[in-house]
Amino acid sequence: MKAVILLSGGLDSSTVLYQANAEGCECYAISFDYQQRHQKELNCALMLGKLAGVVQHQVVNFDLRQWGGSALTDDQIDLPQERSLDEMADNIPVTYVPARNTIFLSFALGYAEAIAAERVYIGVNALDYSGYPDCRPDYIEAMQEVFRLGTKQGREGQSIEIVAPLINLKKTEIIQLGNQLGVPWHLTWSCYAGDDMACGVCDSCQLRLAAFAELGLKDPVAYAEVG
Amino acid sequence: MKAVILLSGGLDSSTVLYQANAEGCECYAISFDYQQRHQKELNCALMLGKLAGVVQHQVVNFDLRQWGGSALTDDQIDLPQERSLDEMADNIPVTYVPARNTIFLSFALGYAEAIAAERVYIGVNALDYSGYPDCRPDYIEAMQEVFRLGTKQGREGQSIEIVAPLINLKKTEIIQLGNQLGVPWHLTWSCYAGDDMACGVCDSCQLRLAAFAELGLKDPVAYAEVG
Repeated sequence: MKAVILLSGGLDSSTVLYQANAEGCECYAISFDYQQRHQKELNCALMLGKLAGVVQHQVVNFDLRQWGGSALTDDQIDLPQERSLDEMADNIPVTYVPARNTIFLSFALGYAEAIAAERVYIGVNALDYSGYPDCRPDYIEAMQEVFRLGTKQGREGQSIEIVAPLINLKKTEIIQLGNQLGVPWHLTWSCYAGDDMACGVCDSCQLRLAAFAELGLKDPVAYAEVG
Repeated sequence: MKAVILLSGGLDSSTVLYQANAEGCECYAISFDYQQRHQKELNCALMLGKLAGVVQHQVVNFDLRQWGGSALTDDQIDLPQERSLDEMADNIPVTYVPARNTIFLSFALGYAEAIAAERVYIGVNALDYSGYPDCRPDYIEAMQEVFRLGTKQGREGQSIEIVAPLINLKKTEIIQLGNQLGVPWHLTWSCYAGDDMACGVCDSCQLRLAAFAELGLKDPVAYAEVG
């Protein structure tokens, strides 16, 4: 079955790509250059897509800096650093990009319909201090209705299905799943900053490091600092 | 109140812009260059935005030709011409662009949240032979749920509202409304082709011409052929 995979190059979406492959899908990857802070994650996505043997890899370009509104799309907003996990749990972080997953899923939907795919895979995850509104199950359900009602395929009873296999997994469980699937962690990139080495202190690095540590595993990515 | 207006430069979205203005909104326009067949409609949008005094006009660029799937994004698919209104009513036309309104509304949502707008106006219209799935009321309701659940503003009880004032109007009623509002029809562009004059024979021209004719009015746009 044909499936479109939203692939950022991070730990979660890479695991989803390998999961879709393991399920026997014919995988079509889609990634985005939205003028985010750096290109490292996107480069990882391209490598991972190639390694996993995707049929096609679309990179869609647009510029979310036109209106900003996030630490990832406005350099005037600082990245949070060295926050405790409890601080992260408090509220929606400044790294939230307005409507980002809705934009991503919309393009994935258009691509999926154009190639007559049956599924769109996305690596959203509602646990582990993810305050993002567009990573929660009720949001995914709402998008599923949009997929059904907003397309020719959906109106003809062949709705494209959103598959979010990680939505209720903890980060440690995602890593365990990725290990079973053989995800090459060294080719994934989670750090919000884009330096040569991952910073080790942004929210994303901290969550990743904490999960590997909890499992007694070493993250093969090189870190500048490990708190 | 701040409002984002989806402005294509066609008859419907131009009427919506003037409607939002008449309702006292502070208008922020958003238009898209998605590598559609021509730039004429976009140029009209820019002129109309200026004339109507929008606070800001964002043009978002991306390329829907990457996967095509529509006569508007793939030159291999011919535009339908000289179809009767009954033929148009039959099914979803080849000018349907997969997920286009979902993509447009997603960007409008991101823009609206970044500027803390309260509304997004869209000129969709479910009547008059519009077979497009993403122009119908149930689709707009589904997107409204996405607006509510997929944003920080929505989660905090300040959901951005989708306003679709034309959804249940006939084309003749839209023209009557636009006349009351003083929409400069000569600056709008509906033709799917992008020649010097509107073709007069594509679905979009025919619907527009038929509505002006039914009202006993003359469309001020220049047509190459009037069937």
